Amino acid sequence: MNPEIYILGSSSATPTRERHPSSQILKIGSEKIMIDCGEGTQSQLIKFGIRHTGLDYILISHLHGDHYFGLIGLISTMSLMGRKQVLHIIGPPPLKQILDLQILHSGMTLKFEIIFYPTNPGRQEFVLSNQSFELTSFPLKHRIHCTGFLIRESKKERHINMEAIQQYKIPVASFKGIKRGENFVLPSGEELDNALLTFDPEPCRSYAYCSDTIFDTDIVAYVKGVNTLYHESTYMKNNQERATLYFHSTAEQAATIAKMAKVGHLIIGHFSSRYDHLQPMLEEAREVFPNTDLAEEGEKFMLSVTKEVLVHS
Amino acid sequence: MNPEIYILGSSSATPTRERHPSSQILKIGSEKIMIDCGEGTQSQLIKFGIRHTGLDYILISHLHGDHYFGLIGLISTMSLMGRKQVLHIIGPPPLKQILDLQILHSGMTLKFEIIFYPTNPGRQEFVLSNQSFELTSFPLKHRIHCTGFLIRESKKERHINMEAIQQYKIPVASFKGIKRGENFVLPSGEELDNALLTFDPEPCRSYAYCSDTIFDTDIVAYVKGVNTLYHESTYMKNNQERATLYFHSTAEQAATIAKMAKVGHLIIGHFSSRYDHLQPMLEEAREVFPNTDLAEEGEKFMLSVTKEVLVHS
Repeated sequence: MNPEIYILGSSSATPTRERHPSSQILKIGSEKIMIDCGEGTQSQLIKFGIRHTGLDYILISHLHGDHYFGLIGLISTMSLMGRKQVLHIIGPPPLKQILDLQILHSGMTLKFEIIFYPTNPGRQEFVLSNQSFELTSFPLKHRIHCTGFLIRESKKERHINMEAIQQYKIPVASFKGIKRGENFVLPSGEELDNALLTFDPEPCRSYAYCSDTIFDTDIVAYVKGVNTLYHESTYMKNNQERATLYFHSTAEQAATIAKMAKVGHLIIGHFSSRYDHLQPMLEEAREVFPNTDLAEEGEKFMLSVTKEVLVHS
Repeated sequence: MNPEIYILGSSSATPTRERHPSSQILKIGSEKIMIDCGEGTQSQLIKFGIRHTGLDYILISHLHGDHYFGLIGLISTMSLMGRKQVLHIIGPPPLKQILDLQILHSGMTLKFEIIFYPTNPGRQEFVLSNQSFELTSFPLKHRIHCTGFLIRESKKERHINMEAIQQYKIPVASFKGIKRGENFVLPSGEELDNALLTFDPEPCRSYAYCSDTIFDTDIVAYVKGVNTLYHESTYMKNNQERATLYFHSTAEQAATIAKMAKVGHLIIGHFSSRYDHLQPMLEEAREVFPNTDLAEEGEKFMLSVTKEVLVHS
């Protein structure tokens, strides 16, 4: 199945009457990954009918509250609901101390293990991989330690070419290796190249998440050619000075990064509370990079094209 | 003006589709006091059109997340909105360390001072007083350090008896002292008792907040005769064993405390997510203490009687 992004929150700094602070869910392979977890994220999950069971990875970009104040509440709820499976949390090093302190003083006894992976804001780093995805973090320039994330589908198995298999009478027991790309040696000793026996798998799709950041062309190299890029767009270009002052970006700047990196699709979010209507923000971005959408809460995007509206259950 | 209670959250443990974790606002004299601050409280303030400016006191009963996970987000928002006036926070000692750590790593530079008053779960303690109210904390028996709060209007000025003032030709300059209860000495040397010169002020109204607690008749002495008592009612009596196991109370038990303490009015809240409909809970309490109401979100109660529904702005 194509990976999907669910938008749970799109507001910068504070909640507004209509919008909530940053949070997204990426469904990829058999995994669900939460990316950022602002206050109220667990209520947004309830609102959009997304279960937190099966949510095994939570990525936190930085320790401004609008990106993580909902995390401890979600962990509490997971604990109360009897969670047992490991939870992987990826974020800035002090996050572990903050969570540990709150867990300690709440008297919570977690029945599940938390594995914590500290991020490094100094350079691009491979974080982890599993059968569904590979995760890399990369530096973002913000007021405090902040990283973006690149999530790429894990290498997929090659497809068996059944005609060739029959032609060479290759036994089923060898399929596993052949799907992984191995060659096959015939009883005669002749070695068949894997390309003769298989077709290419579907390409590995990729998603990059950049929040929060000043306009920074260093990002281009980290997100080059991804299917979908999420890039913060706190302001419009008439507030570019303000954006720079606070280490944020404008819609035009987000679109410029998308264009330079030749990505397939751009989602912009993290909107300042000063914008009640977001259409002008979208138009500003589309002038530079036409295939742009707004990260509106309750929307689901396929990597890298279609958009659907989640049913508010 | 009569003090008023605004209910912002009424759910125990986790948010539900309809309810949010504990939080209330008490307006008393010229002050607004927040009591507990579960996750999402700042969004509830927005929903009900209550401004956080002028909110100078926040009381936290204990460090279970459904009573305080919204506090750091509210402090962040106050900071972003340019707050300058002192914020008084009253709660268990580790709360200060938790807040300090999150403030440090967010890079926030608060432009306002936080004065922190640690509570003591071991005994009843006077916490502070100002021109509007006097605050006392008292022990509650829960799974972790937990206190209730008693808030009483500060002593009010006595009303001048204008007839007596004219009769004795008392100068206006002396009114201030007389309102405070001082006697007056005539030029002849005769001392007039204050009771001759004044009428009693309106009685000082009082509010007691008990969340979370096992059924505990020790509470009766702390809340004796208050106008309004809030007492948690997580379960109904058919779940009394469960209530006891988790150091919570039933509706019947909350009402029993209200009856024993001869309070004027009881508000019950902190409802388990298992109860979709709360009418049976209310009826259970009213069988023991008829003047009981449910702490439903968006409701406003005058101390100690009338109930109004807030307009969702």
